Amino acid sequence: MSNSEWKSVGNGHLEGSISIPDLDPSKLIVTLTARLKPIPQPESLVFGATMSDHMLIASFDPINGWSAPEIKPYGPITLDPASSCFQYATNTFEGMKAYIGPDGSARLFRPEKNMARLARSAERLALPPFNTDALLELIKRLVVVDQRWIPNLEGHSLYIRPTIIGTRSALGVSASDHALLYVILSPSGPYFRTGPKPIALLAAAENVRAWPGGTGSHKVAGNYAPGFLPQRNAAKQGYDQILWLLRDKAGWKVTEAGAMNVFIVLSREDGDIDLITPPLDGTILPGVTRDSVLAIAKAHTSGNLTLPGIPSTQSVHPYEQTFTIADMDQWFAEGRLQELFVVGTAVVVAHVGRVGFQDDMKKPARDLVLPSHEGRMGPVSRAVRQMIIDIQQGKVEWDGWSVRCE
Amino acid sequence: MSNSEWKSVGNGHLEGSISIPDLDPSKLIVTLTARLKPIPQPESLVFGATMSDHMLIASFDPINGWSAPEIKPYGPITLDPASSCFQYATNTFEGMKAYIGPDGSARLFRPEKNMARLARSAERLALPPFNTDALLELIKRLVVVDQRWIPNLEGHSLYIRPTIIGTRSALGVSASDHALLYVILSPSGPYFRTGPKPIALLAAAENVRAWPGGTGSHKVAGNYAPGFLPQRNAAKQGYDQILWLLRDKAGWKVTEAGAMNVFIVLSREDGDIDLITPPLDGTILPGVTRDSVLAIAKAHTSGNLTLPGIPSTQSVHPYEQTFTIADMDQWFAEGRLQELFVVGTAVVVAHVGRVGFQDDMKKPARDLVLPSHEGRMGPVSRAVRQMIIDIQQGKVEWDGWSVRCE
Repeated sequence: MSNSEWKSVGNGHLEGSISIPDLDPSKLIVTLTARLKPIPQPESLVFGATMSDHMLIASFDPINGWSAPEIKPYGPITLDPASSCFQYATNTFEGMKAYIGPDGSARLFRPEKNMARLARSAERLALPPFNTDALLELIKRLVVVDQRWIPNLEGHSLYIRPTIIGTRSALGVSASDHALLYVILSPSGPYFRTGPKPIALLAAAENVRAWPGGTGSHKVAGNYAPGFLPQRNAAKQGYDQILWLLRDKAGWKVTEAGAMNVFIVLSREDGDIDLITPPLDGTILPGVTRDSVLAIAKAHTSGNLTLPGIPSTQSVHPYEQTFTIADMDQWFAEGRLQELFVVGTAVVVAHVGRVGFQDDMKKPARDLVLPSHEGRMGPVSRAVRQMIIDIQQGKVEWDGWSVRCE
Repeated sequence: MSNSEWKSVGNGHLEGSISIPDLDPSKLIVTLTARLKPIPQPESLVFGATMSDHMLIASFDPINGWSAPEIKPYGPITLDPASSCFQYATNTFEGMKAYIGPDGSARLFRPEKNMARLARSAERLALPPFNTDALLELIKRLVVVDQRWIPNLEGHSLYIRPTIIGTRSALGVSASDHALLYVILSPSGPYFRTGPKPIALLAAAENVRAWPGGTGSHKVAGNYAPGFLPQRNAAKQGYDQILWLLRDKAGWKVTEAGAMNVFIVLSREDGDIDLITPPLDGTILPGVTRDSVLAIAKAHTSGNLTLPGIPSTQSVHPYEQTFTIADMDQWFAEGRLQELFVVGTAVVVAHVGRVGFQDDMKKPARDLVLPSHEGRMGPVSRAVRQMIIDIQQGKVEWDGWSVRCE
C-alpha cells in the first residue's frame, strides 16, 4: 500500500486498509546530553548558525509506521547516498519561534498554523502523513527541554525548524515511502542586522520563483535553492533580496521577496490607509506572519485593537489583491506610495527603502526610492512589527495566538 | 569570497582572487571493499534498487577547495541536520550508463555532455564549480573498479548517478559554500518492464513541471519531488506517467513526460516522416538521448547512417518545434499521427500507446489512442531505440559517442 492511502486519525494510528502507528507523544524517549553547550551572547547571534543542545527525531517506514519519537543530543544523521532527499528533494520544513513570556514560560506563536502547513507540504510531496497535534506536543516538549536557549531580549527568540525528508534509498523516480522527521532549534536575533536601515530589493525579471500549477504555496525545499544565484547576483549590485515577479496579462505582478511575503502601504484621500498584499493564488506562500498582519489591521479598523502609533480614528484597510510594478510606479507618481515592507517568521517585519527593477538584464536596474520617514520604519511597518512582537512575547494577549509550552 | 567567484581552470586549481584545489584525479585514494556483494540476476533487476560495491566521493569547503577524491566501499553518508541539501534542496544529479563493448571493455555514452550539464546545474544552484574532465576521469576509474557489475545483456547496463549536494550547516537562506560530490552505480534492466506493451500518459492540466524563468532546463533535485503526487494520481487512473503541459497563448503546449523528453512522429504526403520534439526554451531538459535522436534522424536523412527498418530513401525530418494537445488532436484527425515516444538515459526509448487529457480535474480523462503497429513499437521508435542501443553498446561506431573507460 502506498503511503498516500493512509490517513492520520488522531488516535495514535494511521488508518488505511491496514492500520500502522502514527506519531505518538506517549512513546517519547528522552535522552539528555551529558555536556551542555555554552550559550552565545544574543548580540553575537547569526541567524540559524548555532544549534541548541537537543533535537527531536522520528522515522517512518511503510511496515512499522512512525517510530517512537526521541529527544536526544543534537547530532548528525546518517543516510544512504541514494536517498530521495538528496536525489529528488522530497523535503519540506517549517519556521516557528519560541519566546519567553512575562510569566517566564516558553511560548509559541500560532503553532497550529505551521503544523497544518507542514502536513499540506508533506502531502504535496507524497510524503507520509502524521498527526499534527502529536507533533505540536512533541515540539513543546523539546522547547521546554532546551528552554535555557530562548534569548530573553526583544527581537530575539529561539527559532524552531521542523523538517521532513524522504529517505527511500532507491533511484526510481517515485514517491518516498520512508521518511525522517526532525526538529532542530537555533537561538536567533534580528534577521537583518541593518537596525533602522531599510533593505533594498531587486525586482529581477529573469528568474521566476513560482508559477500557477507549481509549488509556490507550499513550503518545500525545492522552492529555495533556485533563488540563491539570483540573490547572489542582486547582492553584487548592492541589493539585499530579490523581489519576485510573475509576468502575465496584468503585467509584472509582485509576488514575494526573498523567502518573505510583501505588503504595500498606500495613503488615501480620506486620510485612511490601504494595506495590500498579493492574494493566495497558488504562487504565494500562506505565511503565518502575513495572515497575522492582515488580521491585526482588520482588528484595528474594527476597533478591537489599536496599532501602536496609529490613531484609532485612522482605519487600515487590508486587501489581498494583485499589484504590479506599473501599479507601484503609478502610486509613487501620485504620491500615495508610503511604505513597502516584508514579513516572515524569521524576519518578523522589515521595511524596504528602495526597489530596483531590471527588465533588461543587460542594463542596470532603475530604482524606485520609497519615502524615508526620517530614517525610521514607516508608521504602519513599525506598528505591525511592534504589535506582532508584543503578542509573540506575551505582552499583549490576542485571540489565543501566543501558546504556552506546558 | 563566495564560491561563485571561483572558476575551474583545468590545472588542478579553482582560480579566483585566491587559488584553491580543484577536483584532482591524481590525488585519488582507492580503498577496496573487503567483502564483494553478490550480483543479482539481470532479469530480476528493479531500476535503481541495487547498488554496486563502491562509490566515488569528494567534499568541498571554501578554505580547502575540493578534497582528494576517494573510491571506497558503498556506504552511508553522515550530515548535520541543518545542511542545505535537506533544508533548501541545493542538490543536482546526472544519469549516465556504462555498457560492455564487443571488445569486453566498459564504455560510456557521450559522457562529456553529462559533465557539462552537471556543471551548469551546479552553477544554477550556486554550488561550487569543479573540473568536468577530472570528474569524468574519476567516473571511468570507478566504473573499471566495479566493471563486474555491468550486465552484459541487451537493454541492460550499469546506471551511473553523479550527485552534488550542498552541505552548508546553517539555516540562513543563502547559497551553500560546502558541498559533497559523489557517484554511485546501480545495475539496471529495462526501465519499464512492460515489454512490447506501450506506456500510457496522462496529460494533466493541474500541475506544471517547469515554467519560463524556472529550473526546467537544469537537472536539479527540486524539479522531481513535485511530480510524485501527480504521478501517483495518474497511476490510480491506470496511466504510467504524466505528460507535462504548459499553457500559454499557443494553448496546452506539450513539454516532457515523467522525467523524459517527448517525440512525436507524423507521416507526410511525400512519404517522408516528420519527427518533432519541443524546443529548448528553458522549460525543457536538454536530454542527451533527445540530442542523440535528433542527430541520428538528421544523419539518416543526409545518408550518413541508415536507421534499421527505415528505407534509406525515406527521410526522417527532425524539428525542435512547439506542439500542443490541440495539434495532436488535429494530426490524429488527419491520420498523420503515427507514433509518440519518450526518451531518456534510464528508459532509452519507450513508445506511448495512449494519452489521456484532463483539463477539468473533476471529469475523467479522455483518451487519444495511438496507432498500434500490430502490437509492436512503431517503426521510428524501434529504429531510433535500436540504433542508440547499438551505438551505446559499441556494436555501431558513431561520431565518438561510445567512450571507453581506460
